[in-house]
Amino acid sequence: MNFCSDNVVGANAEILAALIEAAKGDTASYGNDPYTARLEKKLSDIFETKLAVFPVATGTAANALSLAAMTPPWGAVYAHNEAHILVDECGAPEFYTAGAKMVGLPGEHGKITAATLATTLTHSDKGNIHHNQPAAVSLSQATECGTVYTPAEIGAIDEAARSHGLPLHMDGARFANALIKLGCRPAEVTWKSGVDILSFGGTKNGALMAEAIVVFRLDLAETLAYRRKRAGHLISKQRFVSAQLCAYLDNDLWLSNARHANEQAARLAKGLIAIPGLQLLYPAEANEVFVHLPTAVRAKLESAGFKFYSWGPQTVDGGAIRLVTSFCTDSKSVDSFIDTVRKLSSKVA
Amino acid sequence: MNFCSDNVVGANAEILAALIEAAKGDTASYGNDPYTARLEKKLSDIFETKLAVFPVATGTAANALSLAAMTPPWGAVYAHNEAHILVDECGAPEFYTAGAKMVGLPGEHGKITAATLATTLTHSDKGNIHHNQPAAVSLSQATECGTVYTPAEIGAIDEAARSHGLPLHMDGARFANALIKLGCRPAEVTWKSGVDILSFGGTKNGALMAEAIVVFRLDLAETLAYRRKRAGHLISKQRFVSAQLCAYLDNDLWLSNARHANEQAARLAKGLIAIPGLQLLYPAEANEVFVHLPTAVRAKLESAGFKFYSWGPQTVDGGAIRLVTSFCTDSKSVDSFIDTVRKLSSKVA
Amino acid sequence: MNFCSDNVVGANAEILAALIEAAKGDTASYGNDPYTARLEKKLSDIFETKLAVFPVATGTAANALSLAAMTPPWGAVYAHNEAHILVDECGAPEFYTAGAKMVGLPGEHGKITAATLATTLTHSDKGNIHHNQPAAVSLSQATECGTVYTPAEIGAIDEAARSHGLPLHMDGARFANALIKLGCRPAEVTWKSGVDILSFGGTKNGALMAEAIVVFRLDLAETLAYRRKRAGHLISKQRFVSAQLCAYLDNDLWLSNARHANEQAARLAKGLIAIPGLQLLYPAEANEVFVHLPTAVRAKLESAGFKFYSWGPQTVDGGAIRLVTSFCTDSKSVDSFIDTVRKLSSKVA
Amino acid sequence: MNFCSDNVVGANAEILAALIEAAKGDTASYGNDPYTARLEKKLSDIFETKLAVFPVATGTAANALSLAAMTPPWGAVYAHNEAHILVDECGAPEFYTAGAKMVGLPGEHGKITAATLATTLTHSDKGNIHHNQPAAVSLSQATECGTVYTPAEIGAIDEAARSHGLPLHMDGARFANALIKLGCRPAEVTWKSGVDILSFGGTKNGALMAEAIVVFRLDLAETLAYRRKRAGHLISKQRFVSAQLCAYLDNDLWLSNARHANEQAARLAKGLIAIPGLQLLYPAEANEVFVHLPTAVRAKLESAGFKFYSWGPQTVDGGAIRLVTSFCTDSKSVDSFIDTVRKLSSKVA
Repeated sequence: MNFCSDNVVGANAEILAALIEAAKGDTASYGNDPYTARLEKKLSDIFETKLAVFPVATGTAANALSLAAMTPPWGAVYAHNEAHILVDECGAPEFYTAGAKMVGLPGEHGKITAATLATTLTHSDKGNIHHNQPAAVSLSQATECGTVYTPAEIGAIDEAARSHGLPLHMDGARFANALIKLGCRPAEVTWKSGVDILSFGGTKNGALMAEAIVVFRLDLAETLAYRRKRAGHLISKQRFVSAQLCAYLDNDLWLSNARHANEQAARLAKGLIAIPGLQLLYPAEANEVFVHLPTAVRAKLESAGFKFYSWGPQTVDGGAIRLVTSFCTDSKSVDSFIDTVRKLSSKVA
Repeated sequence: MNFCSDNVVGANAEILAALIEAAKGDTASYGNDPYTARLEKKLSDIFETKLAVFPVATGTAANALSLAAMTPPWGAVYAHNEAHILVDECGAPEFYTAGAKMVGLPGEHGKITAATLATTLTHSDKGNIHHNQPAAVSLSQATECGTVYTPAEIGAIDEAARSHGLPLHMDGARFANALIKLGCRPAEVTWKSGVDILSFGGTKNGALMAEAIVVFRLDLAETLAYRRKRAGHLISKQRFVSAQLCAYLDNDLWLSNARHANEQAARLAKGLIAIPGLQLLYPAEANEVFVHLPTAVRAKLESAGFKFYSWGPQTVDGGAIRLVTSFCTDSKSVDSFIDTVRKLSSKVA
Repeated sequence: MNFCSDNVVGANAEILAALIEAAKGDTASYGNDPYTARLEKKLSDIFETKLAVFPVATGTAANALSLAAMTPPWGAVYAHNEAHILVDECGAPEFYTAGAKMVGLPGEHGKITAATLATTLTHSDKGNIHHNQPAAVSLSQATECGTVYTPAEIGAIDEAARSHGLPLHMDGARFANALIKLGCRPAEVTWKSGVDILSFGGTKNGALMAEAIVVFRLDLAETLAYRRKRAGHLISKQRFVSAQLCAYLDNDLWLSNARHANEQAARLAKGLIAIPGLQLLYPAEANEVFVHLPTAVRAKLESAGFKFYSWGPQTVDGGAIRLVTSFCTDSKSVDSFIDTVRKLSSKVA
Repeated sequence: MNFCSDNVVGANAEILAALIEAAKGDTASYGNDPYTARLEKKLSDIFETKLAVFPVATGTAANALSLAAMTPPWGAVYAHNEAHILVDECGAPEFYTAGAKMVGLPGEHGKITAATLATTLTHSDKGNIHHNQPAAVSLSQATECGTVYTPAEIGAIDEAARSHGLPLHMDGARFANALIKLGCRPAEVTWKSGVDILSFGGTKNGALMAEAIVVFRLDLAETLAYRRKRAGHLISKQRFVSAQLCAYLDNDLWLSNARHANEQAARLAKGLIAIPGLQLLYPAEANEVFVHLPTAVRAKLESAGFKFYSWGPQTVDGGAIRLVTSFCTDSKSVDSFIDTVRKLSSKVA
C-alpha cells in the first residue's frame, strides 16, 4: 500500500465519466464554457456567497497566483514555517509576486497563532521604506502536519491581520479534509472567518488535475484573469478542468472522499498509538498521520511493500514518517500496516 | 458547425480511454511515473534522437518556459510579428524570461525569412550594453496563418541564427498539421534543421490538455525542471498528462488526426476559391483557412449557425475570417459551409 | 571638440560648489535632509503645483521607475519607435515593470502623433485577456531627434490616452532644452498638458549625476518610495543629489545652460545647411543636429579631432551623424566645425 | 554630535577636490573614461590580482547586482539573520535575482559560522526540484553588529560553501573598517579566503556616493555589465563615481578614514564599559558600538543634542542603542558623550 501522498493515487470514476461527457460537442474555449459557469454557480451555492472562480491545473499555481493578487513586490507574506508556499514550491510565490518575501512564523502542529502574528506585525516597521511591507497572511487548511484550524482560530488570525490591513489567503489543497474534521459549513471556515482567497483543492482528493482559485473579496479578482493567462495557467479547453470540479462537487463527492480519507487516517492513528512505545507527532485531524518509528521497523515495512515518506530529521535510530490516506485507501491495507508495525515493534523491543 | 478554433472541440476517445486506464492503481507523483517514462521513450523513437521531455498543460507554458531556457533577461527573442508568443499570450514570455524583449519581424504569410533575420541580426549591436542582446529565434510551425516552413527554410533561418550564436525554438502547437503537409520525418523538420527546443502540441489536435516541451539540445534542459516547478506547471499527478500524450502518439493517432484536419481545411479552401470573387489570404497548408467575406455574407452565415472568428482589420464592407478545422470536423459541415457561402455570395453579388 | 553627447562634458562650477557646501556638517540620510526639502519646494514653485520628488542618479532609473508606477506587468506602454526607453536602456523598463511590453509607434522627427496613438488604442483589444493591456504613454521631450513637442501636441496625445484611461509619462532628460525652445512655462508643457510623471533631467545639462522623478498625479507616487529603495536608487547621502539639483535650479542655471546649448545647436545647424549639398535630418529644435555627410568628409573631421556619433544606417558613401551641444560648447568650436565641413565638402564635391 | 550612522556625515575634502578636477574637459561616457581605468588599475594593485570593477552609486545596488550574478531565480542565498541584504534593502536582492530566496542563518555577534552553514547545506535537499537550490553565501564585513570576520573564519565558511559549489559574496559597505581591525592585506581577507565578489564601500567612509562591485572570479563578471545598465546603475558621467573612488584610494585615504573611525569607536566603547552597569552587546571591532541604556538616560542624552538610533527591541525600562563613528567623528564629542552618560547613569542609579 502506498501512503506516500494523496497524489500517488488515481481519480474517481465519477470524475473520469465527467471528462468523457465533457468531451462531447464543441464549446467556447478559455473558460467561456457552460462547465465553468456551472462550477461558479455550484461554488457560490456551497459557499453561500458571490465569488469569482479561476480553475487551474495545480495547487502551486493556485497559491502563487492568489498571493500575487494580494501583495506588491516589496510585500511580506506571513505563513507557517512549514507551509507549502515556503518550502515546497521552489520559490513559486517569489516568482509570481515579482520577488515578495515569504516570512515563516513558528507554531505548534503546523499552525500559526493570532498572538504570534500580532506580535510580528507590531514589529514589522510598517511605512519604513527599508523593510518589506506587511502584505498578506496565508494559512494552510488542513496544515502540512495534518492538523486543522477552527473557525475561531482563523477569525482571531484574521483580526490580527485585518488590524494591519492585511488580506487572508487559505491554501486549501486539503480543504475538504479540514471541513470534514470541523463539521461546519464551508462559509464559516472561509469568508465568514475572514478568508479573502481560497486555493480550493481537487487533485489530492479524487480529481486528475483540478484546483480552483476561489475569490471572496471580489476586488482582489480584478487582476487574476490577466495573471493567470500570462502565467500559462488559462487552459484553452478549460471545460476539462471545470468538468472535473463539477463532478467533484456533485452529490458531495468531495465530502465523501474526504470523509473516507479522514476515517482511514483516524483508523491508522488509533491502531498505531495502541502499540506500546509509538507516539504521534501531531493530532491526526485530517488525512495524515505522523509517527516515529525505529529504523529497523521502517526498513522491514518497506520490504513488506509499504510505501511512505520520511518526515523531518532522521537519525541512525530512526525518525518520523508521514502516512497519507486518500479517497481510495482501503481499511484492509490500513489494518495490515498496523499489524505489521505491531509485530515488528514487539520483535524490535 | 464551429470553425472558431481547434480548441473548441472535445478529445479523442482513445485519449479519454487512456485516462481511465491511467487512473488505476498508485504511482509516483511529479513525473516519476511509468507513463512519463514511456512518453520520453516514444518521443525519442519518433524524433530518432536522445531528448528531454517536460509535459505541461498549456501551449503558453510550453512556449514561455522554452524561451526562458534560452534567453537572459536582457535578451531579444526574434519571431514573426503575428507569432502567438508576441500577440496572444498576454506577455507570458516577458514574465517567464524576467523581462526579455520579444522582437517582431515582418514576413509574408506569417513566416519570417532567413534574409530578414540575417539583416536584423547584423544591425543588432551585439555587445553594446545599451541594447537588448540577440538571444533566440522562435518559429511557429504551422504558423498563425496556417502556413508551413519547409526544412530548407528552417535550415536557412537556423544558419542565420547560429552564425550569431542564437538557439532556435519552434512553437509546434500545430506541429502535427505541419508535418502532414510536409510529409517528412519529424527529425528533418526539427533538430536536423536546427531546432533546439520544440513546444510539441497535443491539445489542439485531440488531447484534453497536454503539451510537451521537447528539448533536443540537452544543455538547455538543465534549468527547465526548476523553472517548470517554480511556475506551477509540474503537475502532481503527471501521469494524466503523459498518458494523454502516449495515447496521442500510439498508433499514429496524432498523425491521422492532423491528416483529417488538414484534408478538411483543403476541402474548405478548394470549395471557397471556386466561388467567384472569393480569395484566400494565405495558402491553406495546414488546418486553417483565411478568406475575405462581405459583411452581409458573414452575418447570414452566423445566423445559419456557423461560428468563426474575424481576422485582422474589419471594415463596414467586410473583412477576413478565420476557419479552423480539427480532428473531428466532418466533411458534411464543410460542404454545408461552402454551399451556404456560395448561395449567399450569388445573392449579394 | 567633442559633439558625441551632452554627457561627455563636465559639470557647472555652481553645482560643484554646492556639493562642497553640502558636504559640511551632518544631516539625516535617505532623503530626510534639508536639501531635498528645498528641492521639492523649488520644483513645486517652478511647476506651480503640488508635486512629489524622487531624486535619483540616472535617467534610466527615473524612466523605468516612473513607468513601473504606471503599468501592471501585463500592460503595454506606448512610445516612439526610437525612444530611449525602447532602444537604449537594455530593457530597463521591462525589468522594473516585471515584464510589461514596450510598444513602438512610428512618427516623423521622433514624435508620435495623437492620431497614431488613437488608432493604435482603438485596436488594442482592451479587456481581452490574451493581449497586453494598454497601460501608459511615454513621450521624450526633447525627443531623440532633437525635436520638441508643443503643449498643443502633448495635450492632444493626452486626450487620446486619457480617453482610454492611460496616464502620461514624459522622459525629460533634455526637458530644459525643450522648454527653452517653447518659451512657455514649465507647467504648460507638463501637468497642464496632461503629464502625470516627468523624468526631470539634470545630468545632460550641467549636473554630475542628478535626475528627479517629478510626480504630478500624487496617487502614482504612492509606490515609488518602495520601488526606488528596492532598486537601490535611494542614495544614502541623498543631500548630494538634491544639492546638485538645487544649484541647477537656483538663478535659473538650468535655463541658461539649456539656452546656451540650444543656441550652439542652432548655430551649427545654420552653418551646416548653408553648405551646398548638406541637409538636416530633423529640425534642430533643441541641442542636437543631425546631418548626412559623405564618408570622406567624416573621416577627415575625425582626423581633425572632432568627435561625434553615427546615426542610423551607414553605407559606404556615408550616412548621418549626430552632433550634440551642451552648456559648455563654445562657439569657436562650432564655427571651426562648420568651416572644416565647408572646406572638406567643397574638396569632395 | 550625530552617531546615527556613518551616512549622516559629509565627505572628504580630497574627494570633493577630485570631483572638481574630474569636471574639467570632456571624456567618454558610460565608463569609458580614464578615471574608471585608473580605478581598476588601483584596485587591482591593492588586491594584488586581476579583477573587474563596476562602480555604482549605492551599496544596495552593489549587493543586489552581485547576488544576481551568483544565483538563478530558484536559488537560495545564505546570510546572517541580521544581514543588510535580508532586512534593510526592501527586497532588493529578490528584485534583482528575479525572486531568489534569502535564507537567514543564526550566529553570535552578527556572524555566521562555517558549522552552521555546513549543517544547513547538508539538509538543503540539493537537486530536489520542490525546494530552492543552494546558490550563494553572503557575508557582511564588517557585520551589522560592528564585528569582523577573520580570514580563517571566512576561509572555513568558504570551504563549506565551496564543497557544495556555492560562490561567496562579501558585503563590504564597511570593508575598510574591517581591514583596519584585521591589519591584514586586502587580498587575504577577500579572494585568498574565497570571496568571489566584493561590494566595496566608499560612501560610509568619506565618499559622497561611490561604491564598487569588485569581481575576483571573472566569469561572474560576464553578465554584470548588462545587469547594471538594465537596472539604471550605469552612470552616464561615470567619471564622477570613479574619481571619488580614486581619491578615496589615493594616499590610503580610505584606510586613514577607517582607522580614525575605528579609534573613535574604541574610545567610545572603552569609556562606556568603564561606567558601572553598562555593557556592550557586541565587541566593538569596527566603527560601531552597541550598548544598553536606561530610558531615562537616553531621553536626557537626546535632550543634550546627541543623536543615535535604537537597536533591537525596546522596553519601558530601556533598550540598546547603536553608536556609529566616522572619518570625521571628533574625540571631543566622543568624550562629551561618555561624560554625559556617566553623569546621567550615576544620577539614575
